[in-house]
Amino acid sequence: MNAPTSLTADPLAIAQQLAENFAQTAAARDKQGGNPKQERDLIRQSGLLGLSIPASFGGQGADWSTIFKTVQIIARVDSSLAHVYGFHHLLIATVQLFSQPEQYGKWFQQTVEEQLFWGNTLNPLDRRTTAAAVSDDAYIFHGDKSFCSGSMDSDILLCSGFNDAGKLLIGVIPTAREGVSFLGDWNNMGQRQTDSGTSHFEQVKIHKDELLLNPGPLSTPYSSLRPLIAQLTFVHLFLGVAEGAYQTAVDTVKTQKAWSKSLAEKAANDPFTQKHFADFYVQLESVRLLAQKAVQALQRAWEIGEALTAEQRGEVSIAIAAAKIASTSASLNITQNIFQVMGARATTAELNLDRFWRNVRTQTLHDPVDYKYQEIGEWVLTGKVPDPSFYS
Amino acid sequence: MNAPTSLTADPLAIAQQLAENFAQTAAARDKQGGNPKQERDLIRQSGLLGLSIPASFGGQGADWSTIFKTVQIIARVDSSLAHVYGFHHLLIATVQLFSQPEQYGKWFQQTVEEQLFWGNTLNPLDRRTTAAAVSDDAYIFHGDKSFCSGSMDSDILLCSGFNDAGKLLIGVIPTAREGVSFLGDWNNMGQRQTDSGTSHFEQVKIHKDELLLNPGPLSTPYSSLRPLIAQLTFVHLFLGVAEGAYQTAVDTVKTQKAWSKSLAEKAANDPFTQKHFADFYVQLESVRLLAQKAVQALQRAWEIGEALTAEQRGEVSIAIAAAKIASTSASLNITQNIFQVMGARATTAELNLDRFWRNVRTQTLHDPVDYKYQEIGEWVLTGKVPDPSFYS
Amino acid sequence: MNAPTSLTADPLAIAQQLAENFAQTAAARDKQGGNPKQERDLIRQSGLLGLSIPASFGGQGADWSTIFKTVQIIARVDSSLAHVYGFHHLLIATVQLFSQPEQYGKWFQQTVEEQLFWGNTLNPLDRRTTAAAVSDDAYIFHGDKSFCSGSMDSDILLCSGFNDAGKLLIGVIPTAREGVSFLGDWNNMGQRQTDSGTSHFEQVKIHKDELLLNPGPLSTPYSSLRPLIAQLTFVHLFLGVAEGAYQTAVDTVKTQKAWSKSLAEKAANDPFTQKHFADFYVQLESVRLLAQKAVQALQRAWEIGEALTAEQRGEVSIAIAAAKIASTSASLNITQNIFQVMGARATTAELNLDRFWRNVRTQTLHDPVDYKYQEIGEWVLTGKVPDPSFYS
Amino acid sequence: MNAPTSLTADPLAIAQQLAENFAQTAAARDKQGGNPKQERDLIRQSGLLGLSIPASFGGQGADWSTIFKTVQIIARVDSSLAHVYGFHHLLIATVQLFSQPEQYGKWFQQTVEEQLFWGNTLNPLDRRTTAAAVSDDAYIFHGDKSFCSGSMDSDILLCSGFNDAGKLLIGVIPTAREGVSFLGDWNNMGQRQTDSGTSHFEQVKIHKDELLLNPGPLSTPYSSLRPLIAQLTFVHLFLGVAEGAYQTAVDTVKTQKAWSKSLAEKAANDPFTQKHFADFYVQLESVRLLAQKAVQALQRAWEIGEALTAEQRGEVSIAIAAAKIASTSASLNITQNIFQVMGARATTAELNLDRFWRNVRTQTLHDPVDYKYQEIGEWVLTGKVPDPSFYS
Repeated sequence: MNAPTSLTADPLAIAQQLAENFAQTAAARDKQGGNPKQERDLIRQSGLLGLSIPASFGGQGADWSTIFKTVQIIARVDSSLAHVYGFHHLLIATVQLFSQPEQYGKWFQQTVEEQLFWGNTLNPLDRRTTAAAVSDDAYIFHGDKSFCSGSMDSDILLCSGFNDAGKLLIGVIPTAREGVSFLGDWNNMGQRQTDSGTSHFEQVKIHKDELLLNPGPLSTPYSSLRPLIAQLTFVHLFLGVAEGAYQTAVDTVKTQKAWSKSLAEKAANDPFTQKHFADFYVQLESVRLLAQKAVQALQRAWEIGEALTAEQRGEVSIAIAAAKIASTSASLNITQNIFQVMGARATTAELNLDRFWRNVRTQTLHDPVDYKYQEIGEWVLTGKVPDPSFYS
Repeated sequence: MNAPTSLTADPLAIAQQLAENFAQTAAARDKQGGNPKQERDLIRQSGLLGLSIPASFGGQGADWSTIFKTVQIIARVDSSLAHVYGFHHLLIATVQLFSQPEQYGKWFQQTVEEQLFWGNTLNPLDRRTTAAAVSDDAYIFHGDKSFCSGSMDSDILLCSGFNDAGKLLIGVIPTAREGVSFLGDWNNMGQRQTDSGTSHFEQVKIHKDELLLNPGPLSTPYSSLRPLIAQLTFVHLFLGVAEGAYQTAVDTVKTQKAWSKSLAEKAANDPFTQKHFADFYVQLESVRLLAQKAVQALQRAWEIGEALTAEQRGEVSIAIAAAKIASTSASLNITQNIFQVMGARATTAELNLDRFWRNVRTQTLHDPVDYKYQEIGEWVLTGKVPDPSFYS
Repeated sequence: MNAPTSLTADPLAIAQQLAENFAQTAAARDKQGGNPKQERDLIRQSGLLGLSIPASFGGQGADWSTIFKTVQIIARVDSSLAHVYGFHHLLIATVQLFSQPEQYGKWFQQTVEEQLFWGNTLNPLDRRTTAAAVSDDAYIFHGDKSFCSGSMDSDILLCSGFNDAGKLLIGVIPTAREGVSFLGDWNNMGQRQTDSGTSHFEQVKIHKDELLLNPGPLSTPYSSLRPLIAQLTFVHLFLGVAEGAYQTAVDTVKTQKAWSKSLAEKAANDPFTQKHFADFYVQLESVRLLAQKAVQALQRAWEIGEALTAEQRGEVSIAIAAAKIASTSASLNITQNIFQVMGARATTAELNLDRFWRNVRTQTLHDPVDYKYQEIGEWVLTGKVPDPSFYS
Repeated sequence: MNAPTSLTADPLAIAQQLAENFAQTAAARDKQGGNPKQERDLIRQSGLLGLSIPASFGGQGADWSTIFKTVQIIARVDSSLAHVYGFHHLLIATVQLFSQPEQYGKWFQQTVEEQLFWGNTLNPLDRRTTAAAVSDDAYIFHGDKSFCSGSMDSDILLCSGFNDAGKLLIGVIPTAREGVSFLGDWNNMGQRQTDSGTSHFEQVKIHKDELLLNPGPLSTPYSSLRPLIAQLTFVHLFLGVAEGAYQTAVDTVKTQKAWSKSLAEKAANDPFTQKHFADFYVQLESVRLLAQKAVQALQRAWEIGEALTAEQRGEVSIAIAAAKIASTSASLNITQNIFQVMGARATTAELNLDRFWRNVRTQTLHDPVDYKYQEIGEWVLTGKVPDPSFYS
């Protein structure tokens, strides 16, 4: 895996190879936390960073189904890497939705040629970074921003700040731009290698042509697809983690003896154990199908482009909210209950199997799932689709 | 709706027309119980009885997706009629799976030409009806059989008996055959117009060429698709009922005021109410997708025909078991909890809204759903697909 | 049971005797609906109508634990009779809370001596009955009132109307008072023999000394115990119904064979069946203990009397809300899922076992349980106890 | 807290003081794992180690309610310390149940006088330690034993081995006995400071009068109370952890702002948030009452002594199984869902709030809760109480 993988290779197979590699160290790296430099480089070398970039700019121009499937495959073994990898594609989509090909074309070409990893410092709830115009074509971004997943070891950065008028400005700069630094202060109970810590912008100069102003953030139904792509990335993280936990439990229980009081000898024939696994399976199947339906809805909306209506965008939003609700419940439920079937020996720190739960428990808190229920309920009863925001 | 509908009409539109008609009297007929002769005749006249019959015999040759969709549409307003209508198609499929075109061709042509309604007296758990060979080509069927859904007012009948050797013999006869009678003793808490009572065979003569002997019941993986079609019929009943209950609740709550302590004025804006509806919606969406996947699996297996392997049949079985589990839970949950959002006034007997719950509560007991979990769990842990039986 | 039972007899034993009698006809009477005159007379003859009346007025002066236990025992077999019987005691408590011994003493003595059954026409949400002062000491009550449980065949009636100023006036009159009539229009899916229909007051004269003005409704923390007693009556209805359903399931399943695919021969040894029953049992145990705790809290508050503080009253309210939430969930869950273990034959109309579910599904809608959660949640987070109202 | 606390001090107040001390370092010590020597010494100094020892031997002779309450109080902040502390009392009870006062009296006196901490190497599922008689009054114990909670830093040790005939022999020795060592290999995802690792007995000499032979382990219904005391210790661990998690969530959410889309400004007034907390509260209340009932049942059985019948012992067993089921569900549910209400910032590693979940997820696997359902279900349907074993 030293040379960039051929663009013609099957991206799912590549993702699977990466997953097999990551799986060997995932438990240990979770404990360690910090930046998984080596694994990020393997992603760079895999060629998958160009997966979502249109063929016209040298990328693979994959559809959303393929992109999310690669996220899901990696999430089965390592949801931190799946997260920053998924966000890379989210950021590429962001640029497509918030700006024009004339502007982003060169970034995309460079991304493909140099296998650039995109990083994120866009957190619209944290208003500490200011954006001040210092001339007709220059701005100074200054201040801190929390929850900047994938910012460390990135090559190119989506950055954001609020101007005096309270307007959010979003730009794209090389991560190496003078004044940009990361505090490396991410140390949370889950998603431990996502580097979701604080960025600091010390009087960072940004040229006007680095800002995404046309059409700008969430300015049209089409550009408002951005948060939906983020939400659907989470859905595939949750699904992947749940599948990984489930597979671990299947592999573990397959060869176990049943509990002494069971009517069966083998755990695989114990009725209680069977019912737990069937319950997991039905939940996973539901989530897989809801996610698939949501991806198809997104793909159709993506292909419509700027003609997308608010109503059409709203329907994508509802499909994704349904998948979000189901994947949140299923992933929490499965990552918690695999222990019930595996038994006490599965709690040894060496296996580090609680990381599945810690990862989804952490990531499912990005925004409260109660308000996904609220959005769907309101739509069912009034027909009103959710207002676009960075969380809907 | 007096003349048979043209075969070229959209079956879903026809089913929808029937449903709208049935909806007007469904609440009243549920209380009444008994045989819905008038509505059964409307089904006859609708042309939908030929929906599943191959075009080569004059039928519409619809795929399973279309057939089940018509069942689901009718079940939204009347799950008794949906049941006997769905069983009609199940019985036509039974004949295709258990016998050869040379035998069933004439029955199918007659069914299309005369709009025959098929009825069921096949209950493999009730062994009271005996089948005795009285000559080389004649048998006497004698005895009772319970749970004979759709037998009354049927035109043609699937009948069954056990011979001395304990082998199940299944035949097809005109319902008017001498000695056949129905006790009309179906009076249960749900599915009240399915006539699922006892049949009595008083020394009924059956010719050998009326018996389904080649290949016979559950004799091959392909012929063993029969119980899976029955299970998938149930899934669409449960789904349809749940959708009907849900729609009733949406229509009711849309215009209600919120409870006095709510932060909202209208019920449609009450957070608790919204969450209940979102919960219903996500459940319904899951079931719709699981059912769709199962139907597609069945369709593929159906098209493979006698070459179907036990393993392939098993996979269909698992997909259907998953849909059965989810549709059982969702339909019970939704038909129970719509009251929570609609409030006390929805309990008036005039509306008869408890029929949704009574119908699914009754029909979901056909066979214990716990053993669908058991089958999936065993398959997950051991790879073993369920052994074909009249319930798996 | 022709003569009034001795006051010294054990009220629980008497309730049990009544229950055994009612059980014989409960299924049939549920279908019939209407007024259970004969059973109401048995309650009159049992002496239990004096159970809650202080010994100083000739009653048995039982504590709340005993009173609610008799409600629960009757609810196990007939929740309609339990309801009107429970409301009888609620109305006696209402009079104690809203007026003074000088006023209610004679009513109580008469109740004991003549075995009077109290009925209810107090529904504070229905403002159609007006109360107009026509002289210094006379009022005219006029209009309709819905949900008047136990009004028909009552001997003495709690009545209510709103005066011009929007104030609720509550009085006590003989049911035979001129102008009082009942429409007999209660026909709902559950609680079918509670006569919870509409009352009509046609220019009914009420003397001032029949009005409960000192201290009047919900005027003090102590008088505000009234709605809590109503709520706790519901809790014991739900618990009783759940216990009745559970016992029916135990009795039914005890002798059944297990499903053909079970590892066990008898249903009693089937792991899935065992788990369902354990689940029911743990739910029932929880509700029994939460109800008991709430009853003890009420008893303490009752004994404090007018010195009861708002805070103390609030704590009773929280204990009852917790019991209400748990009993609502448990009773719906158990009455729904007993069918899962009993199987299809339990759906025969003759047994009428769906009445358990229909009864709790109907009665649990008295006021939305979501707002019991709301009240507890608010109290947990802010310390604020629920404001007294007719539902809190 | 340097001198032993007076025996007359309130043990609940002492436990609360310990808890407040432990709370300051609990999050940090959880990460560290290993042996909490300093905190164990504080327990020694607190005087609570004599709590369960009869007054006749110098102890406080507390009832089970008080003992378990101290376990629960400590578990709210540190379930590892609560575990080893609870096991200390379990081991003291074990000696009372398996042997006679003449034998255990001196150990008890010494325990009180020297504040001895008892440790556990009794794991009946691990048969690697052998017990061989080498003379009339001497035995050699040799081999490993896993899951030896509280063995390190203990002063006196319950040890166990199997003799040639497969009989379990249990003894009591000073932990310092030659040949006894601990591998210090406990490193699991939860209960990290319980030292539940492997013990090694290298040809350890044990005198016959150190063996608990009269009546010996599980030899009578009364001596079979031992595993029930273990189960009830777990119940109080789960309950304490759930209460600790709940309190943390209450404290955190109290001052939070509601989510931007909420109808409320403060989180404390957000309906979804309120409902989550009410749900937690009702679960906790149920568990507290079920635990209390089980403790009372145990206390009665304990006081009956050797006259305890198998049936009476069985009823205690059922009460404890019910509490075990409810506390398992509630503790998993609450420790998982507090994050839902607290939001993303609660996942910071500094707070280490996932330890609540990790602790109960680990400890609830001691034996499969499915078989507690099984035991209750069997008892409900057949009247058979669970056979005594080290898990029932």
